[in-house]
Amino acid sequence: MGPIKAQASYKKEVPTETWLEWKKEKKARKAKKREKLLSELDKQKEAASEISTEIEPTSQEESKGRSWTLSIALPGNILDNAQTPELRSALAGQIARAAAIFNVDEIVVFNEHGSLDKDKDNNSGLDEDLPPSCLQLSRILQYLECPQYLRKYFFPIHQDLRHAGLLNPLDAPNHYRRDDKAKFREGYVTEKVKKSAHSMVDVGLQRPIPVDTQLTPGLRVTVEIEEHPSGDMKKLQGRVVPPSTPVKQEGTYWGYSVRCAPSLGAVFTQCPYDEGYDLLVGTSERGDPVPKCLPSFKHILVTFGGLRGLELGLESDESLKVDDPSMLFDFYLNTCPGQGSRTIRTEEALLVTLAALQPAINSANF
Amino acid sequence: MGPIKAQASYKKEVPTETWLEWKKEKKARKAKKREKLLSELDKQKEAASEISTEIEPTSQEESKGRSWTLSIALPGNILDNAQTPELRSALAGQIARAAAIFNVDEIVVFNEHGSLDKDKDNNSGLDEDLPPSCLQLSRILQYLECPQYLRKYFFPIHQDLRHAGLLNPLDAPNHYRRDDKAKFREGYVTEKVKKSAHSMVDVGLQRPIPVDTQLTPGLRVTVEIEEHPSGDMKKLQGRVVPPSTPVKQEGTYWGYSVRCAPSLGAVFTQCPYDEGYDLLVGTSERGDPVPKCLPSFKHILVTFGGLRGLELGLESDESLKVDDPSMLFDFYLNTCPGQGSRTIRTEEALLVTLAALQPAINSANF
Repeated sequence: MGPIKAQASYKKEVPTETWLEWKKEKKARKAKKREKLLSELDKQKEAASEISTEIEPTSQEESKGRSWTLSIALPGNILDNAQTPELRSALAGQIARAAAIFNVDEIVVFNEHGSLDKDKDNNSGLDEDLPPSCLQLSRILQYLECPQYLRKYFFPIHQDLRHAGLLNPLDAPNHYRRDDKAKFREGYVTEKVKKSAHSMVDVGLQRPIPVDTQLTPGLRVTVEIEEHPSGDMKKLQGRVVPPSTPVKQEGTYWGYSVRCAPSLGAVFTQCPYDEGYDLLVGTSERGDPVPKCLPSFKHILVTFGGLRGLELGLESDESLKVDDPSMLFDFYLNTCPGQGSRTIRTEEALLVTLAALQPAINSANF
Repeated sequence: MGPIKAQASYKKEVPTETWLEWKKEKKARKAKKREKLLSELDKQKEAASEISTEIEPTSQEESKGRSWTLSIALPGNILDNAQTPELRSALAGQIARAAAIFNVDEIVVFNEHGSLDKDKDNNSGLDEDLPPSCLQLSRILQYLECPQYLRKYFFPIHQDLRHAGLLNPLDAPNHYRRDDKAKFREGYVTEKVKKSAHSMVDVGLQRPIPVDTQLTPGLRVTVEIEEHPSGDMKKLQGRVVPPSTPVKQEGTYWGYSVRCAPSLGAVFTQCPYDEGYDLLVGTSERGDPVPKCLPSFKHILVTFGGLRGLELGLESDESLKVDDPSMLFDFYLNTCPGQGSRTIRTEEALLVTLAALQPAINSANF
């Protein structure tokens, strides 16, 4: 596998039983939440009636500094539906682009044929036993997310990336060119300088710059660039910060992390955030209409099924002891009512759903 | 070019000057409309407050019988950005799928480098002088829209369709299989039976069925299937109806028509509807936020730009004497505020925009 960004330090797995109990409690709290939701809706409406459609503030202004995260989960198996190797890569590229467009912080690639029960001793999240489709999707997603100047370090030639050169770039704000001036930059630790307690980091500038921490060479880090008091551009130095800092401080989208989950259940139980996901949304043609607003949250997870829906992932994972996928989520939504095609493909559902949810997501945290 | 569906009988072209004058009047009426819009918004809000998010009716129910149309326009030149012939076809396929998902009735493929002034004598809408990208996009769109059993009549082997077999099918409701029971079916006139004033039409059943009108063989028609009083399935007969009937009567999505426009201006002036488009929406990163509802309309047109935005189409078409693309539209909208990628590609913008507009479009006509 390619590199996993520093923030993806997986928590110890939560047993499925505990998680299901926790879900039950959540269901009980749901009624309460819904009341809150309706009262929030009322407040919103009052506020909206004072603002004409002409003078609404743009969300660019609103989004400065963001304290919440957006995760999406989808089955990597969908790559097996592509007709040629080129189209298989293109499909992965579409998913990466959809995630970038909507500022997704984490993409979870799960195996819709996997079960947690079967893989109990083997759930590192980077399991080489995962089907090739899941591994390839993860690898292409990571490749596209990585700023171009760092790819040489992290992505040796690999069959999975054969057509990756054809894909549309993410054009993410953290993919800086050499001459771009930027407060934060992604970097690769090239050298540990023992005597001065520094490390040298390649952040895509003319030469590596020193940072204030001793780090193991080979790591990927986020660096806050500090200008030299003299203003000399050749004497830049840096400070290592968590990869979430650019998002939290400036609202600058800083790419996504990729996590592999051996089954649908593992999507929930191997959550990398200490607090867990606190708002779970499932998508299905059989779901409810999109609500006008959502309860406020810290970590939202939106889960998508493959050609056979989330039902397949649920059936396959024996550790999930519920009958209906809707039981797994706080909201189970049909984001495209009245669809003119009998099917919506996962890569299409990503764009449609995230666009349909965007107003509700934005209003939940403001 | 492939076939054009019967409804696409183009009106005589409106001179650009007349159209621009009409636009001016529209702008004047805009303020009035906006007032109406706000009052509608208020009414909506009152209604919404009475309905909990739980019991909202699904739009499937709402959409039974539809009297309005949705058109989209986009530059065919975007095909030139694709890296390989296979990906070029895939891009066309993505556009067709997006249109089907959102029940689009008409796709206008325009040449963003063309000018109406230059092509004054040559604006049939099926101009063979159009760039190959526009022609190929139109052809693939038509191919995918055509029910499988009719393709042999309308689509001889053609270089443009070389990779069309790899594309995801539209899975539109009017793509019936041989055994499907359906009230309406698309058909191909195989024979004119002079003595009985009938025609024989292949509607994808075991054998062609008779219809009550004398038609020129080779036409594509929409047929309402009538069962024989005896119930004998071998004695089915049909009645030719306008292709809009299934949509108007039952709300069944009946595919899209495809129109080529030699320039951005021709998108508006060569409108196939007698009344013209009465709600024009343009999309741009520099647009306004999406309003909560739109004024009611008969024929909405949503126009998309290519990599260089609608600005390129406007600059190229000397007949459009305005400085800013926003002047061409009733609403000029940024449908993805706070985007995490510097660019949104046209094929992505289709899904994002139509998903973001869907609530406003649906509320406008109910």
